[in-house]
Amino acid sequence: MKSEKIEIDMARLQSQIDELALISENPPPVVTRILFSEADLRGRAFVKKLAAEAGLKVRQDAIGNIFIQWTGQNPKLPAVATGSHIDAIPNAGKFDGVVGVLGPIEAIRALQRAGVNPERSIEVIVFTAEEPTRFGIGCVGSRLLAGTLAPEKAALLKDRDGKSLESWREQVGWANEHLRSVRLASNCFSAFVELHIEQGPLLEKENLPIGVVERIAAPSTLRLALTGVGGHAGGTLMPGRRDALLAGAEVALAVEKAALNSGSPDTVATTGIFRIEPGAVNSVPCKAHLEIDLRDTQTRTRDGAMAQIERDVGTICERRGVQFELERVATDPPVTCDPRLVNLIAETCSTLRLPFKRMVSRAYHDSSFMAQICPTVMIFIPCRNGWSHRPDEYASPEQIKTGVTVLAHTLASLASEL
Amino acid sequence: MKSEKIEIDMARLQSQIDELALISENPPPVVTRILFSEADLRGRAFVKKLAAEAGLKVRQDAIGNIFIQWTGQNPKLPAVATGSHIDAIPNAGKFDGVVGVLGPIEAIRALQRAGVNPERSIEVIVFTAEEPTRFGIGCVGSRLLAGTLAPEKAALLKDRDGKSLESWREQVGWANEHLRSVRLASNCFSAFVELHIEQGPLLEKENLPIGVVERIAAPSTLRLALTGVGGHAGGTLMPGRRDALLAGAEVALAVEKAALNSGSPDTVATTGIFRIEPGAVNSVPCKAHLEIDLRDTQTRTRDGAMAQIERDVGTICERRGVQFELERVATDPPVTCDPRLVNLIAETCSTLRLPFKRMVSRAYHDSSFMAQICPTVMIFIPCRNGWSHRPDEYASPEQIKTGVTVLAHTLASLASEL
Repeated sequence: MKSEKIEIDMARLQSQIDELALISENPPPVVTRILFSEADLRGRAFVKKLAAEAGLKVRQDAIGNIFIQWTGQNPKLPAVATGSHIDAIPNAGKFDGVVGVLGPIEAIRALQRAGVNPERSIEVIVFTAEEPTRFGIGCVGSRLLAGTLAPEKAALLKDRDGKSLESWREQVGWANEHLRSVRLASNCFSAFVELHIEQGPLLEKENLPIGVVERIAAPSTLRLALTGVGGHAGGTLMPGRRDALLAGAEVALAVEKAALNSGSPDTVATTGIFRIEPGAVNSVPCKAHLEIDLRDTQTRTRDGAMAQIERDVGTICERRGVQFELERVATDPPVTCDPRLVNLIAETCSTLRLPFKRMVSRAYHDSSFMAQICPTVMIFIPCRNGWSHRPDEYASPEQIKTGVTVLAHTLASLASEL
Repeated sequence: MKSEKIEIDMARLQSQIDELALISENPPPVVTRILFSEADLRGRAFVKKLAAEAGLKVRQDAIGNIFIQWTGQNPKLPAVATGSHIDAIPNAGKFDGVVGVLGPIEAIRALQRAGVNPERSIEVIVFTAEEPTRFGIGCVGSRLLAGTLAPEKAALLKDRDGKSLESWREQVGWANEHLRSVRLASNCFSAFVELHIEQGPLLEKENLPIGVVERIAAPSTLRLALTGVGGHAGGTLMPGRRDALLAGAEVALAVEKAALNSGSPDTVATTGIFRIEPGAVNSVPCKAHLEIDLRDTQTRTRDGAMAQIERDVGTICERRGVQFELERVATDPPVTCDPRLVNLIAETCSTLRLPFKRMVSRAYHDSSFMAQICPTVMIFIPCRNGWSHRPDEYASPEQIKTGVTVLAHTLASLASEL
């Protein structure tokens, strides 16, 4: 295999990215594709169609993870896997996840055009629900693949309307197989490589086309239900109030403070969901629902900030006479990528004369869970201003092409290993 | 007229209150009847049916205020008016407003049974949208009647979905007449008397069946739109954040502080609406929408607290790099009830051997605006724990019967005046 033969058809890839972006619950440029929404289901069909057009085999598991296979000469050898997700949070952009799904399909086509005939199969995985929007927990598909989320627990996950994952599986026709069937053996892939936009500003700032991820920050999610006492906004004097919104406001500020004071500049904490009831201008809020996202590259400072938040919730609620239920929805460890794979990508970049840096992923990814079952690494490309999870998220065709090129070389190299 | 002849049929009135409570956007015991909802329209039809059954004349104006008339012997004399509202905020109870609408219809029936033959007509007014839920401003019907809200401004009011009052009027078939036709001449009623639950704890605490309202607190509403910068909750480090939710949280706490420090124990301030965008756990909130309710018995301390809140919004947003738009949706003056009417009700209570107290209404009411065009007074009855705007809002049949009895005597007395 000569590396100069591998040429990505960026025009086609870009038009596929643009077309998928139109499959959204909101008008352009907003991309919203929440798990099980019509947009999510149509997006999945779109990817399967592209896979079929490329002559690749497609199968889907009981949680809807899609496996797109280019069969190698030695299909009994563990395959080389790549992939990402196509679900998108409300009001998001078109590159997060998508580059790591459509990019690899184009990478495979480029390898086919270059006459590559790999020993190992290459599989592109489209993971279900990397985003936590529907069930409050992210990476549902990859957690189940890796066995870090129990199928029995997953089945009982409930969305905002109280509808369970299991009910949803039945509704969309995925319930023929039990969720237990999703889990993969830990030797089923020889490697997993995820291509993704950085979702941070470093590569752009340093004008580097490629980041090789060495570590992935430890994510965690807290869910807080506050119950105060409602009443008429005019008739209830201030001293007797037990306002759930005000307790929630103090908690949100305490969350910020816990991250700022964690002792590490890498700690980030966000109150991303904040809903109150009844939500009428002349009524004292009786309930508040908060969801808090807390991440760090080190477990120690992350857990310190989490404990501080939990203490503050108790103090605030006691002072305000507000009842609370606080739940740790997820607390995952940070991930160290496979050193051999990190070095392989670094060498590929050197061969291709591409400057790169070794870096940390502050966002978590399906890679965080694939790392539990096989050697894993991530390839980052820059995105404008580090913006992500917003409609103006952007990576240029040139930046994407470079990332897919590095991915294609990496996959070819890994798939040639005997 | 002999007062002992006036006997309220409380069983019928209670069953009407219970029946109207079932006309709701939510299952019992929750009452939600937002302006223009199907429940609101069905509630209106229910009241008109009761009026027709009592042999009373019904007309409706261009904003949907309903006038139910018992015609007097001298129909050219300005009528005596009473009334309240039947719309209800989300998650409310069944007595707020309703007692002042169904109570007077039963009061008229009791006067008819007692053989009262009034000189002046008695009119029960069902005011449109006393609650501010749909358009963010309360007392839309009575403001238009009194001319304190310009019809041109009212027509342009927009709800959360961007739909204007004028579009709604067209949709429900009220647009044949222009909104200008709603305004009443200032001599069209000789008096207005509103019966209402207290929505505060004082009457219950002092074990008094009747409150005579001398003053109504000055209400005001602020609307605040905050625009920060969104982004990925993992990838955006803390120092660079411009989180709209956190600015909103600080504002909500500043609102509380402004009320507590106003210098008057009568100042109350509530952030009753607090919505954020995009509302995803892993996304930094880029927008927050707050609606703030601020009331006081004195304009001076109310306006002082409002100015403090406005200053704090500026300071908080500047420090956090968050843009804001702050609008005074409504700032109304406190109302002094007509001293002659206050005394008349006090005398009626004495005649009926009912203990009572002169008091302040901390909630605002349609009376606040009727007071601009005619002598006005309010009769309060106790409600359990002072609770209102919640499903467990409660006034006992005995308490309601006492209030309606006082109202019936008052109306009879006023309608006999030549």
